[in-house]
Amino acid sequence: MQNDALSLDEIVRRVNAKAADYCALSDRIWTMPELAFEEWRSSAEQITMLEREGFRITKEIGGIATAFVAEYGSGGPIVGILGEFDALPGLAQVSGLTEHQPTIKGAPGHGCGHNLLGSGAALAAVAIKDALSAEGIAGTVRYYGCPAEEAGGGKTYMARAGVFDGIDVAFSWHPADVNGVSTQSTLATVGAYFRFKGRASHAAASPHVGRSALDAVELMNVGVNYMREHMPSEARVHYAVTDTGGDAPNVVQAYAESIYSVRSPHLPDAERLFERVKNIAKGAALMTDTSVTVQITGGCSNVLPNVVLQEVMYENMRRLGPPDFDHADYTFAREIRKAALTNDDVKASVGLHYVTLKERVLHDALLPMPAHEGVSMGSTDVGDVSWIVPTAQCYTACFAIGTPLHTWQLVTQGNLPAAHKGMVLAAKSMATTAADCLRNPAIIARAKAELKERTGGREYRCPIPPNVSPYDLRAKAP
Amino acid sequence: MQNDALSLDEIVRRVNAKAADYCALSDRIWTMPELAFEEWRSSAEQITMLEREGFRITKEIGGIATAFVAEYGSGGPIVGILGEFDALPGLAQVSGLTEHQPTIKGAPGHGCGHNLLGSGAALAAVAIKDALSAEGIAGTVRYYGCPAEEAGGGKTYMARAGVFDGIDVAFSWHPADVNGVSTQSTLATVGAYFRFKGRASHAAASPHVGRSALDAVELMNVGVNYMREHMPSEARVHYAVTDTGGDAPNVVQAYAESIYSVRSPHLPDAERLFERVKNIAKGAALMTDTSVTVQITGGCSNVLPNVVLQEVMYENMRRLGPPDFDHADYTFAREIRKAALTNDDVKASVGLHYVTLKERVLHDALLPMPAHEGVSMGSTDVGDVSWIVPTAQCYTACFAIGTPLHTWQLVTQGNLPAAHKGMVLAAKSMATTAADCLRNPAIIARAKAELKERTGGREYRCPIPPNVSPYDLRAKAP
Amino acid sequence: MQNDALSLDEIVRRVNAKAADYCALSDRIWTMPELAFEEWRSSAEQITMLEREGFRITKEIGGIATAFVAEYGSGGPIVGILGEFDALPGLAQVSGLTEHQPTIKGAPGHGCGHNLLGSGAALAAVAIKDALSAEGIAGTVRYYGCPAEEAGGGKTYMARAGVFDGIDVAFSWHPADVNGVSTQSTLATVGAYFRFKGRASHAAASPHVGRSALDAVELMNVGVNYMREHMPSEARVHYAVTDTGGDAPNVVQAYAESIYSVRSPHLPDAERLFERVKNIAKGAALMTDTSVTVQITGGCSNVLPNVVLQEVMYENMRRLGPPDFDHADYTFAREIRKAALTNDDVKASVGLHYVTLKERVLHDALLPMPAHEGVSMGSTDVGDVSWIVPTAQCYTACFAIGTPLHTWQLVTQGNLPAAHKGMVLAAKSMATTAADCLRNPAIIARAKAELKERTGGREYRCPIPPNVSPYDLRAKAP
Amino acid sequence: MQNDALSLDEIVRRVNAKAADYCALSDRIWTMPELAFEEWRSSAEQITMLEREGFRITKEIGGIATAFVAEYGSGGPIVGILGEFDALPGLAQVSGLTEHQPTIKGAPGHGCGHNLLGSGAALAAVAIKDALSAEGIAGTVRYYGCPAEEAGGGKTYMARAGVFDGIDVAFSWHPADVNGVSTQSTLATVGAYFRFKGRASHAAASPHVGRSALDAVELMNVGVNYMREHMPSEARVHYAVTDTGGDAPNVVQAYAESIYSVRSPHLPDAERLFERVKNIAKGAALMTDTSVTVQITGGCSNVLPNVVLQEVMYENMRRLGPPDFDHADYTFAREIRKAALTNDDVKASVGLHYVTLKERVLHDALLPMPAHEGVSMGSTDVGDVSWIVPTAQCYTACFAIGTPLHTWQLVTQGNLPAAHKGMVLAAKSMATTAADCLRNPAIIARAKAELKERTGGREYRCPIPPNVSPYDLRAKAP
Repeated sequence: MQNDALSLDEIVRRVNAKAADYCALSDRIWTMPELAFEEWRSSAEQITMLEREGFRITKEIGGIATAFVAEYGSGGPIVGILGEFDALPGLAQVSGLTEHQPTIKGAPGHGCGHNLLGSGAALAAVAIKDALSAEGIAGTVRYYGCPAEEAGGGKTYMARAGVFDGIDVAFSWHPADVNGVSTQSTLATVGAYFRFKGRASHAAASPHVGRSALDAVELMNVGVNYMREHMPSEARVHYAVTDTGGDAPNVVQAYAESIYSVRSPHLPDAERLFERVKNIAKGAALMTDTSVTVQITGGCSNVLPNVVLQEVMYENMRRLGPPDFDHADYTFAREIRKAALTNDDVKASVGLHYVTLKERVLHDALLPMPAHEGVSMGSTDVGDVSWIVPTAQCYTACFAIGTPLHTWQLVTQGNLPAAHKGMVLAAKSMATTAADCLRNPAIIARAKAELKERTGGREYRCPIPPNVSPYDLRAKAP
Repeated sequence: MQNDALSLDEIVRRVNAKAADYCALSDRIWTMPELAFEEWRSSAEQITMLEREGFRITKEIGGIATAFVAEYGSGGPIVGILGEFDALPGLAQVSGLTEHQPTIKGAPGHGCGHNLLGSGAALAAVAIKDALSAEGIAGTVRYYGCPAEEAGGGKTYMARAGVFDGIDVAFSWHPADVNGVSTQSTLATVGAYFRFKGRASHAAASPHVGRSALDAVELMNVGVNYMREHMPSEARVHYAVTDTGGDAPNVVQAYAESIYSVRSPHLPDAERLFERVKNIAKGAALMTDTSVTVQITGGCSNVLPNVVLQEVMYENMRRLGPPDFDHADYTFAREIRKAALTNDDVKASVGLHYVTLKERVLHDALLPMPAHEGVSMGSTDVGDVSWIVPTAQCYTACFAIGTPLHTWQLVTQGNLPAAHKGMVLAAKSMATTAADCLRNPAIIARAKAELKERTGGREYRCPIPPNVSPYDLRAKAP
Repeated sequence: MQNDALSLDEIVRRVNAKAADYCALSDRIWTMPELAFEEWRSSAEQITMLEREGFRITKEIGGIATAFVAEYGSGGPIVGILGEFDALPGLAQVSGLTEHQPTIKGAPGHGCGHNLLGSGAALAAVAIKDALSAEGIAGTVRYYGCPAEEAGGGKTYMARAGVFDGIDVAFSWHPADVNGVSTQSTLATVGAYFRFKGRASHAAASPHVGRSALDAVELMNVGVNYMREHMPSEARVHYAVTDTGGDAPNVVQAYAESIYSVRSPHLPDAERLFERVKNIAKGAALMTDTSVTVQITGGCSNVLPNVVLQEVMYENMRRLGPPDFDHADYTFAREIRKAALTNDDVKASVGLHYVTLKERVLHDALLPMPAHEGVSMGSTDVGDVSWIVPTAQCYTACFAIGTPLHTWQLVTQGNLPAAHKGMVLAAKSMATTAADCLRNPAIIARAKAELKERTGGREYRCPIPPNVSPYDLRAKAP
Repeated sequence: MQNDALSLDEIVRRVNAKAADYCALSDRIWTMPELAFEEWRSSAEQITMLEREGFRITKEIGGIATAFVAEYGSGGPIVGILGEFDALPGLAQVSGLTEHQPTIKGAPGHGCGHNLLGSGAALAAVAIKDALSAEGIAGTVRYYGCPAEEAGGGKTYMARAGVFDGIDVAFSWHPADVNGVSTQSTLATVGAYFRFKGRASHAAASPHVGRSALDAVELMNVGVNYMREHMPSEARVHYAVTDTGGDAPNVVQAYAESIYSVRSPHLPDAERLFERVKNIAKGAALMTDTSVTVQITGGCSNVLPNVVLQEVMYENMRRLGPPDFDHADYTFAREIRKAALTNDDVKASVGLHYVTLKERVLHDALLPMPAHEGVSMGSTDVGDVSWIVPTAQCYTACFAIGTPLHTWQLVTQGNLPAAHKGMVLAAKSMATTAADCLRNPAIIARAKAELKERTGGREYRCPIPPNVSPYDLRAKAP
């Protein structure tokens, strides 16, 4: 028996004691949405709260100005809790509405609920700290303030710098519309800018003198689309054209740029595929008599699930029960479902559970552990942590069922009571599971053995090369 | 003998009398560069000057807010003088330098010398008016204030509205680095936005649900590149991608847009080719399960040269002689040539005359009339006027030899004394030729016969459809 | 208990009694390899054998000259056994060698073992007939002589004609390198020629007059490659270019042709995808000013597995045991493995069983039924039968482990003793399972209920349109 | 005065004396059409005739089995006469019909009139020989039997071997529908096979393992179509796909091949453009993870016109007058014009002369020398000779006006009396001009000076690399 009933009640009490403060923290961050690598105020707010709790703060870790670690306790085992707080562009939205209404048009908004994510994770860390300190358990808890999950992969840079080395288990969560333990792996990804330089010329008078960089961008895309047939079905390659070389049709475009993401269930496969994409870029340059440079913008490893930790966490969630939604929560959820969510949204979100959940608006149950591990067709920098340390994640119902990520519909629910309840449940799930690990080091040993088996003993290798800094990426070629 | 020696001296005297005022007008417009269709102040400055001279002003002609006509006299023959005054984006430059230094970075600048063009044309119109009024010659002179030559084709809209109907001959000029009569035809052109709508989707999680508008833009470009082999060699099709559907590679692009120019030596051929381009766009939409809309942005007819008028103008220019450049003019020209112009610039500008001109920095001669008509691989809205009324143009040396159009090198010379001298010569060339036509209506009759032969009796048909307004083009799809 | 032990021994005895005759039949067909729809002699050989056994023969069924049905018995239940006998181009090979040596260079060969397939199926039908006749069981057995599995889908034409309507269960098998019951579904497929007509012209003198049909073929392919990102991962679209319009680069190609296969796990999805491919073809025609016609060449439905029948068949195979290979069989298998088969061949063939099977050369066991149904990334016209009647298939070890389909390595083993042993096991597996169904109609009822659930009550609809005949497909456009 | 009246009458007499024999030779070759490099019998027939006349024969010159030179006389000046005799595939046609009727379907035919070309050239050589021998003029005449003008460039191989070195002037002609002197230059050309190797795989089961050589061929074509905008308008690049890797859509194509022609008015430009095409091929290989090899198949230089020789030839043709067509010639010409030639054919053939010639069916006049040299948008291996020695060509009316080259309409007229008359006129034009040169070496000096000016002193460099043999080209990759 690995879960400890006493432990659970104790942790619940400690989380409840400080829940209001951290819900308020979440709401403050909701009102100051900051984009990736620019989370100056959100990061500072978190640091202030954790310093007050007696955590030792190390700032600017891994070369990232808004990354920090807050540590309490000493000696092993060491538990890591991962928090995020970055927002998304263009998603500003008034709270508590059932229609789209930006606070400021075009401004950022917390479209992925990272205000809740970081605050709930910090709340879990604080509860563990309180338990460690009260109960005299040996061990250390570290809260990682992780910037730029949405764009850039803050944790990947942090992992490259070794800041996760030496911890024993790690936990995180994500706000969602259902409650459950995360069992899926994700796609490893590598991203890069491809920048082509040609020669400008008047497109009517002397097109034969020009060498079109836009042609090169297009031919690279054609080449990649031809490659699709000859890559594994579960890999993904997608792109955006970030500079077309100008709006004037009468000038042969001397400069053009695209950005690519290459993804695969296993990082080495993603890297091999990325090499093929680079060859296609070189081919496009050869075809157009232009030159190309490649700038890696980031990358992250696939998540390695850890069934040992998942099972402990699942048992805790089963005991904790769902969030305790009230009449007002249901009423608003029903309204936004009616006004702004479709059946397709619900299907897209809950998948196989559609038949059971389609009539419900808030998830007041726990999704079962699925029979076999799937691959989520997305990527997260939690993946890099999961290659270094056994990692588990849960998700909890913070929003009406069917609310898609990265939408105003999510932003408008991001500081409502239902969201707070989901966040508090997540804090409890993480903290109880962490406490189980601290009290029962055998869990940690088994979790580590599973990790070793999954990596096949392969050392973590960061997909972002040593010389890449997120602060250099904005500077484009002329 | 169609040129009249007395007339020439008389016109020279009248132009000289007011040259300083119109050079000052040109300098004022140089300092307030305004983009196509936004020439509010430049247009107002011109109107003020011409009203003061007693011209009757009609504003906002052809539905263009900054277009106007200034008329003097009554009855036929009617002479039209065409002036322009729009600037170009991003070409702001301090005057009189031999290095690139913007006044305001990214601001517009008079990179095609239209400050000189409009002011010199107005000066010609005023001199003709003075001659008409002083000498009691029958006839009318009209100055056309023509916006948006650079982008949009102001004269084409004006021609569509019939404002050039009924005039007998028309004249214009262009600032250049050499002196001569313009004998080449140009390319007719049709331009349009192609706007594709697809369906957004997460590019990793559900790419199969998305329909990429960016794919459609790319496939249209591929299709057009395949068409190149199967269109006449002297036609031109070129494009820019004006909206790529966003910078995020992980979103299937739901909207994308490109702008195309289609050109050919004859308008009907350009229109036929444009129909093929539209079919390619439809094909790209079919291929990608997206929809496409086409918005014509403008167009212009090819210039029909008029040898009758060219010969009269050439003889006048021969008698007028080149601009009277002084030591300071040569000195600056030598400096900018050395600092900022290359042999290739000179070659590109003077072509076959390279051998004779390569050692010179200012053109103090007159280029001979070439043996056979060529096609300039560019387009101008003077073309539309030339289909309605016999039209002739000259160019005069305002800049150091080799100065390319649309560069800071041209802007920096645009209000120097040498530019003024070239402008005044152009005013004299146009005014003397116009005076010859007024005094000798047989010239007009022959010029009209030539026009009729060239059109084959085909009525002018405007390449811009009736419902297109330049003010609608900015409004893009979402 | 659905399998009947007495029945099994009885059937084994009957199969053994005639096994030698049908092995000889298989060997005769091996020596006369005939391509799809041209199986005149192979079909006649089979008919002769079955007529001799007292089957009633109906020839040329479903409009296919080499298709036939051989029936015995009367009344229900009706059991169908499906046999094939077509060969593959270019695979002629001397028997019993471990190196490539064609009998006649470029001639056809039985590269997919259909000589065994048809003969083994006929042997099963004869054994069932003997059982029916000896034991007085009510029911009918039908052997279907099915041409053109490799290219064209004989059974699909036969299904279109209704020849499988009214039968209760159907069985087939395929020669392989392992023993097991087939549990996977397959891909539904639709195939078509796309024929483009343009206009010829001299490619140097007047390319602008030409309209290239080859351009259209290429642009269609480009369009399809762009579509790949936006179709389900498990779908397949592939093509060959079957006419490039000639070998002369100096002629604009006036005619060109490609052939496409579109596949998906569900026929309606394949058909929807095929519509998109047709739209891409239309788009390519629009882009190139050519015209396109589409000729469907065939298609087949996905296989609907039937677990009820699979389980009965599996139990029979478990009782029957593997083929009884002797020392000579092992020796040859070891030699060909060493000389002409690689580890990759073995991996490709046995997949997850590689670890257990990599050291073995002949499969003398039975593969377990897999936990979940997979999709084989291939297509078979057995799919169409499986939509009409509950159908089960087995495969048996006829060749050395790792022998790939469609290779000379398979041809050379196609008439060896090991192949005969595998074929006889397959006949027993089918015949015992058919006998179980005849004696225990409840199996049939449950199998039909499963079929109904899988189709969702959807009627079988043939993917080949009514007007398409396999004999028209050779006649190409000029 | 460079033309010699006595000479002309003398030559006319000599040509007439042997005209019937060489018309019969032409008719024999018409009946035995042989393709490029396979002109065994046609070459032998010519050799027999010339040996009989006392020419010294050297066979298999320049490494070409069917190439030969026949020489008479000794010492300078040396006159070269160029003859051809290869036929075209698929153009077999019954003689003297006004409808398409092949002698043997798909068999070759003399669709470019090379039966006449070689026989007429030989007749000219014989007449010159007779004049040399009769009149005791110093000098040598050489007849060059030149294979493979249509496909492969026999003269280019011969030029590479130096067989034209040291001669003073060269003449040739081409059968046509009008009479005139050839004044145009042609396009230089380089041709090559591009062969891509990838890796086969099953296109449904394991497309990700395959590397498609057909993809590479297609992407190379896409790349070239993108290059078109950025190459000179008068250049040409065209291709055919000569191996698509098979007709089976379910196999990833492991091998594919295309053939390219690259042309430009100047050989160095063609070679530079060819380098760009090679880079595009390399780019396509990089894009598809395939490899590419390039095999040059041939090439030829642009024709350098020689005005000095043209003028002498023109004056001779003026004096000779047109062919003396009779009533029967006109009648058949009228019939075939009505039945099988269109106005567009006539326009395409006679261009600017359409207005004057559209009502006529046989050309009984001489086209004037055009005011300026044009470029014929085709290529001929006469170009290589013209870089080594001053060369002139005429064309004469052998066919009804409007008869296109490379058609059955031309074949059917190829042995009729009108064709004979045209051929005899051509022999006279060449022989008289050659005689003028021999008698008046100043013409040769001036012609050589012109050649030197045109080449700018550049040595002839053969566009076909030293190691390429026409006999190796058939051997393709597997």
